[in-house]
Amino acid sequence: MLTIGEIGERQLIEDFKSFLRPEGRIGPGDDAAVIGKDIVVTTDIVSFDRHMPAGMSYEQFGWYAAAVNFSDLAAMGARPIGITTALALPPSLDAQAAYDIMSGIDQCAEFCGTGVIGGDTKPGPGIVAGTALGIMDGRCPMLRTGARPGDIVAVTGPLGGPAAGFTAIDNGLDYQGAKERLYMPIPRVAEGIILSESGVVSSCMDLSDGLGTALNTICESSKVGIDVEFDFIPKEPFVAEISEKTGVSMEKLLLGWGGEYELLFTADPNRFKKLYDEDLEFSIIGMVNDSGHPELVREGKRSIIGNGEY
Amino acid sequence: MLTIGEIGERQLIEDFKSFLRPEGRIGPGDDAAVIGKDIVVTTDIVSFDRHMPAGMSYEQFGWYAAAVNFSDLAAMGARPIGITTALALPPSLDAQAAYDIMSGIDQCAEFCGTGVIGGDTKPGPGIVAGTALGIMDGRCPMLRTGARPGDIVAVTGPLGGPAAGFTAIDNGLDYQGAKERLYMPIPRVAEGIILSESGVVSSCMDLSDGLGTALNTICESSKVGIDVEFDFIPKEPFVAEISEKTGVSMEKLLLGWGGEYELLFTADPNRFKKLYDEDLEFSIIGMVNDSGHPELVREGKRSIIGNGEY
Repeated sequence: MLTIGEIGERQLIEDFKSFLRPEGRIGPGDDAAVIGKDIVVTTDIVSFDRHMPAGMSYEQFGWYAAAVNFSDLAAMGARPIGITTALALPPSLDAQAAYDIMSGIDQCAEFCGTGVIGGDTKPGPGIVAGTALGIMDGRCPMLRTGARPGDIVAVTGPLGGPAAGFTAIDNGLDYQGAKERLYMPIPRVAEGIILSESGVVSSCMDLSDGLGTALNTICESSKVGIDVEFDFIPKEPFVAEISEKTGVSMEKLLLGWGGEYELLFTADPNRFKKLYDEDLEFSIIGMVNDSGHPELVREGKRSIIGNGEY
Repeated sequence: MLTIGEIGERQLIEDFKSFLRPEGRIGPGDDAAVIGKDIVVTTDIVSFDRHMPAGMSYEQFGWYAAAVNFSDLAAMGARPIGITTALALPPSLDAQAAYDIMSGIDQCAEFCGTGVIGGDTKPGPGIVAGTALGIMDGRCPMLRTGARPGDIVAVTGPLGGPAAGFTAIDNGLDYQGAKERLYMPIPRVAEGIILSESGVVSSCMDLSDGLGTALNTICESSKVGIDVEFDFIPKEPFVAEISEKTGVSMEKLLLGWGGEYELLFTADPNRFKKLYDEDLEFSIIGMVNDSGHPELVREGKRSIIGNGEY
């Protein structure tokens, strides 16, 4: 029998899906589950080990732990109604660090219009498992399965920030703005609600595993292909500079990196223009087709967009 | 500044309550939070370290991880509608152990009339954070604050099983029945629904921290006292035997030990008799008074019932 490490986390999560039951309308495979009439729920774990890059404060770690959960609600278009947090922290840690983590969670929840509604604490290596709850208020949850050839493909904001921030830290560069994107991602809750309310969005997900992975997931789930125009991808201003200084390619920073919390969505080409009337920042980056996979078009040249980090 | 270990887990949870927001009708301090119209949510962490006594299988550990959460729903009288599970498991662990844990969670959820609706997996030391969701279906949630002098005090089943099981293992005694109580506690979900539906229950909580702590909590929350008759406490048949063989007192096994998942409740003395018409096993163990704390009456002698393990 293989160990968990040998099988790998992705495969394990895939295997665990056989245990998932669609108690409500939405089955497994989306950012969050929908139960009852219109309650949306999602769980994500973060750890000191993996999600606390150099320079991140405990308060920012708490914000991050909450943000990854609220981002999953945002991707469905749900309005957050609470978050529970299970903390497993080292007994040797300063208690102030624990309060700072809770304060960060609380601030992110407040930013998302809700609060901490419960939790538990046990000794552990520095893990926060958050469970965010949301409600659809009668809107239809946005899924990953509805993209159709001809739909436009768009993202809610400039990309590459977290990847560039991490790369800057790794190379000893001082880009405070880039680091902020990494330390305090903004869950696009208000944007998700506007998108689901518009009725023109055919699929949506967040970029927590990176744009490349998200594009592949939408293509697989919706059984479509996507062409992305490199030049259309909105970029944080410092991304090109950090790419140049470190030699890390623009493609990697923009497509092959997780920790990005903008929303990727597809929308009806005939009706998406009503989104311009909304209080919503977004950029069209490509089109849905029937090729079966995502491709990047840069200066006329095509390349397949890989799944996972690259 | 003190460390988390120096401050202690209980104090930390107490301190964290300042972050809790009553998003719905029920504030912090109960087994679970109520949000929206009648959604109940609760989070509990269990770990290999603390909650996997010798001889417990991974499947039983999974059951246990789910049961502690469903028990919190049971204490409110909620009907479970789903559970999410965040697993932090060692990469060196056999993948079969992970499947067994999920299978145990799944079986317990099925026993409680629901299923696993989502989750996340990351490397970690062996921690499962569950979040159970329930719905009140129009019933009023049972709280810890409603006990009034004159109410009867009752529990849903025989006590001492998990404590006796642990003591048996610790002393190399072979009491399979006792060990089963420890390994696979039964969340009293059906009982909780009957109790909340009856309309005669004034307060309720589960015994996860032991009967002694639960009695103290009800007294503090409801600002009452409670007299418990030792002879009235329903006991698993093997408790007296294990107490005698090991020298661990009956009081300790029955009152001073967590991991017990029966429900403790108080009820209107004039109307509780309607509970006898229900499909519900329960035993009256005492009465609510105005003394301000719980006391044990054994062979005419009174002693104060301590908070926490003893």
